[in-house]
Amino acid sequence: MRISGLAERTGVPVATVKYYLREGLLNPGVQTSATQARYDESHVARLRLVKALQDVGRLSISAIKQVIDCLEPGDVFAGLGAVQHQLPPAVPEDVDTTEADKLVGTLGWRVVPGSTAMRQLAVAMRAAEDVGLPLTPDGLATYADAAYRVAEREIAGMPQDSLASAITYAVVGTVLYEPILLALRRLAHQDVSGRLLAEWA
Amino acid sequence: MRISGLAERTGVPVATVKYYLREGLLNPGVQTSATQARYDESHVARLRLVKALQDVGRLSISAIKQVIDCLEPGDVFAGLGAVQHQLPPAVPEDVDTTEADKLVGTLGWRVVPGSTAMRQLAVAMRAAEDVGLPLTPDGLATYADAAYRVAEREIAGMPQDSLASAITYAVVGTVLYEPILLALRRLAHQDVSGRLLAEWA
Repeated sequence: MRISGLAERTGVPVATVKYYLREGLLNPGVQTSATQARYDESHVARLRLVKALQDVGRLSISAIKQVIDCLEPGDVFAGLGAVQHQLPPAVPEDVDTTEADKLVGTLGWRVVPGSTAMRQLAVAMRAAEDVGLPLTPDGLATYADAAYRVAEREIAGMPQDSLASAITYAVVGTVLYEPILLALRRLAHQDVSGRLLAEWA
Repeated sequence: MRISGLAERTGVPVATVKYYLREGLLNPGVQTSATQARYDESHVARLRLVKALQDVGRLSISAIKQVIDCLEPGDVFAGLGAVQHQLPPAVPEDVDTTEADKLVGTLGWRVVPGSTAMRQLAVAMRAAEDVGLPLTPDGLATYADAAYRVAEREIAGMPQDSLASAITYAVVGTVLYEPILLALRRLAHQDVSGRLLAEWA
């Protein structure tokens, strides 16, 4: 298809598609004349990924570029780690993770020391503590148990046909399913508090 | 304590405290002279809440103001709803929630139709579908089950001594515990994928 067809299929304006091409977020199509190129399904898939990372993941263009760069063949584990590192929220490099490391250590999980996720946890734990609602071992057990159930199912569904599809799945799953989990938590709050109020009435 | 003591206790610079006072995020202290006022523990608590909403919740000043306004006495349910509505991420008002309503309906939860959380779910579901990873009924069951366990425990811990403390708990819990849940999910991904890779090796 031409660039106009690509725009139509994905809902991304032609000018934006051209911008993505210039920024290297989208591979060039096959040149058919001096001013035209042909695009295929791989371009449609890539554009949808970029759009999703931008709209739902709220990633900056440079963060998307770094995620996209991880999609090229390489070491799976390094690729997944790099991707997880690029995803928001951004956390400072110099966060002290001693407390978080210790708490997660009680779960027996094998995790990457000082990873973005661990620093993210440390920052959130400190903030919760600062406002007088610290994460207790009991609370941790509840959140960790829920998180682990979700993670197990998600990893079980990861496609293994190619590194690119595994990483795409990981990126999309991490970024696009975070709001799904959070929205369901808020809806569950509505149901649970509604039931409680009904009991009290 | 004086404004300098307040700044010292909370780590918020004096200039920022003055800004919050002007914006009405912090109640005025008791005036002790033309240029000085005395502040107490309620100001420390409020400042920590504002700081947490800003640093971790990433709320704008105007969103924080609207959340703070909900802390004044009123109807609990309306207050909680208003708070949930103010919290990020912002979602458009005109999102079609038909699909999301239907899916959540299968769970038997009593939720507020068209609420922010439902629109948030609808947007995320559409994005996941657009990139070829739609939320299936089976997937929904996993996320909903995890979300419900978390929500039940959270609501059970809500203080019932005053509306202000209940809402503070709800705001802090929603905003500050979201990153904890998400960070633990990513750490669980590390553990689960590590175990899988070890099995394959």
